[in-house]
Amino acid sequence: MVEEQETARRRGRGARERILAAATALFEAQGITATGMEQVAARAPVSKRTLYLHFPTKDQLVVAYLRHLVEAGHTMESVLDRQDLPPRQRLLELFTVPDPGAGPIRGCPFIDAAAEFPDPDSAVHAYTRQQKQRFTERVIDQVRQLGAAHPAALGEQLAILADGVASRSMVFNDPACGKHARAAAAALLDAAIA
Amino acid sequence: MVEEQETARRRGRGARERILAAATALFEAQGITATGMEQVAARAPVSKRTLYLHFPTKDQLVVAYLRHLVEAGHTMESVLDRQDLPPRQRLLELFTVPDPGAGPIRGCPFIDAAAEFPDPDSAVHAYTRQQKQRFTERVIDQVRQLGAAHPAALGEQLAILADGVASRSMVFNDPACGKHARAAAAALLDAAIA
Repeated sequence: MVEEQETARRRGRGARERILAAATALFEAQGITATGMEQVAARAPVSKRTLYLHFPTKDQLVVAYLRHLVEAGHTMESVLDRQDLPPRQRLLELFTVPDPGAGPIRGCPFIDAAAEFPDPDSAVHAYTRQQKQRFTERVIDQVRQLGAAHPAALGEQLAILADGVASRSMVFNDPACGKHARAAAAALLDAAIA
Repeated sequence: MVEEQETARRRGRGARERILAAATALFEAQGITATGMEQVAARAPVSKRTLYLHFPTKDQLVVAYLRHLVEAGHTMESVLDRQDLPPRQRLLELFTVPDPGAGPIRGCPFIDAAAEFPDPDSAVHAYTRQQKQRFTERVIDQVRQLGAAHPAALGEQLAILADGVASRSMVFNDPACGKHARAAAAALLDAAIA
């Protein structure tokens, strides 16, 4: 009986993970609004009943997709966790555009999602704002640890540069702008720490 | 006869303008993919036949909408045309987020459109890339006129900051990040011109 419950739980968790993997692949390849719930169910694959048991609305699926990116470390924020790098280097690594693998370079998933859900009060847009706020606070915290003057302003400037790189490398499908942002960030850091 | 042709031409042009105005309002309020051609026709208002006579595909309508923003001066690039401002001030004005009026702050329409059309080879994504390239070249040109060292790198850095502000002010629905980017841009300009 316990074993049966365990099997059911595993199967349930497997379905949730498959749904999130399918949603991630489809949202990244074609955009969120362009992706229907039926397409997610077909790709997972799960029945529509199972999909709606896990995610009663598409908004809930989109927020879960964004949260999963954070939890799995698939965001630019994850470089701030790299203990193998000194703090200054960690901040400068924000400007290395990750290799997209086979497909085109994608933008920041939070900016993209906010653009697709323009109402600032919608659940999806509100989640992207929380995440951006959290990311910015982490950057400010690392800037403060470096002993920089005006850490709040400088941290915001580095976050603006990082978001600009994410958007532009997606538009150009070219990571080259990252090195210019990194040089700007290094100059701003140097001026604030001198 | 000439008068009839003239009336028909005016009516035709009126329909095109109404379609573009309707598309702009709907794309900005709810996103591009979320907006159907039928909705655009209903809002314009024009018959679907008239809509498809002017724009045989949705891609053509989206590219025309983006081009119209540029031609009508409804982009951040338009501050570079302001002859009432000295060149340095013009560049710093890139970081003033325009008052959105009644609705929420919208992001850069070219970044948003590129995010909704992820394929870099699609007509819409390609148009956004051309426009971003043109904008960046204009910024570089103004930086060069100021006598700054390394104008190409500095112009790219200012464009990255401007795009970061556009995306973040949309996510936060708050123009406050503009002043931080302006301070960073001023510091980078000062260092390059000294």
